[in-house]
Amino acid sequence: MEFSDIVKFHGHSCPGLAIGYRLSMAAMNGLGVVRSDDEELFAVVENDACGVDALQFVTGCTFGKGNLFFNDYGKQVYTLFSRVKQLGVRVTFHGSGIPVELREDRPAFAERVLQESEAAIISVVAVPYRELQVAKIRKSGVCSICGESVMETKMLDALNGRICIPCSEQKVAPN
Amino acid sequence: MEFSDIVKFHGHSCPGLAIGYRLSMAAMNGLGVVRSDDEELFAVVENDACGVDALQFVTGCTFGKGNLFFNDYGKQVYTLFSRVKQLGVRVTFHGSGIPVELREDRPAFAERVLQESEAAIISVVAVPYRELQVAKIRKSGVCSICGESVMETKMLDALNGRICIPCSEQKVAPN
Repeated sequence: MEFSDIVKFHGHSCPGLAIGYRLSMAAMNGLGVVRSDDEELFAVVENDACGVDALQFVTGCTFGKGNLFFNDYGKQVYTLFSRVKQLGVRVTFHGSGIPVELREDRPAFAERVLQESEAAIISVVAVPYRELQVAKIRKSGVCSICGESVMETKMLDALNGRICIPCSEQKVAPN
Repeated sequence: MEFSDIVKFHGHSCPGLAIGYRLSMAAMNGLGVVRSDDEELFAVVENDACGVDALQFVTGCTFGKGNLFFNDYGKQVYTLFSRVKQLGVRVTFHGSGIPVELREDRPAFAERVLQESEAAIISVVAVPYRELQVAKIRKSGVCSICGESVMETKMLDALNGRICIPCSEQKVAPN
């Protein structure tokens, strides 16, 4: 897994992506696991910044697979769990080995994050395993108003039948 | 952009991923745009299923870049916007050109989704452009309890100083 592959996915290089890459590799090594093809691994991330794209790419815990859980805490912390090994590890970026003044120079900071020893920038702590919900495939129904297909668990009962949330809010183009 | 690249990112092939791939390509073509290195594009997705991984990979609208917005409507609908062109397009999967019975055979269904003509499975509708929030880089502070770095906008005022959300909830390992 090369950082350049992750840059290609994210679209550009930045310190946050480099931090996410190092955190994700540290978590994988900490658990002694390989990338998650399905839901063998799941991750809880405490921010939704650039680094999470590295986590998605490195660990296979992705938004679309249902094994990426988001706690909006604004912290550079990921907790990665292995369903197979029933283990968890919490990785945090402290960056103490990198001079504060270097952080102003984003390319230099990113490069240093990639080169620095793990112990100098990251803490890795084992945490008790706990299960989180596995993604489910749901049946679909058809909205009585817009006629579009809708996951049954997201349909609402209305006078004119079962409808989707945006139609219930009378939005033509949802969002 | 090959489907096999997206399968590698997602971890496996499935009908949902194929649908997301076709929807994402249709949206990009509909807008006449290329992949988003930064936030030139942003997407509003109406589900968090497999297909969104294809959208992340194809459009560059990713969870970590702040240009992926999630409306939990349970619909196979994406709306893609171009900040450069100030255009929007809403793509929905109707799949009317694919026999219902074929859907039971997941590999055959996925293959058919990849091969079928766009008009037979997808509707593409232009929508008015509207701006959504651009991601911001926030300063960080240090939690007075755990000593970890926290995005300033996510810190809470407490008797013992500014603290992070998990410490305010007295969680040792957040989440």
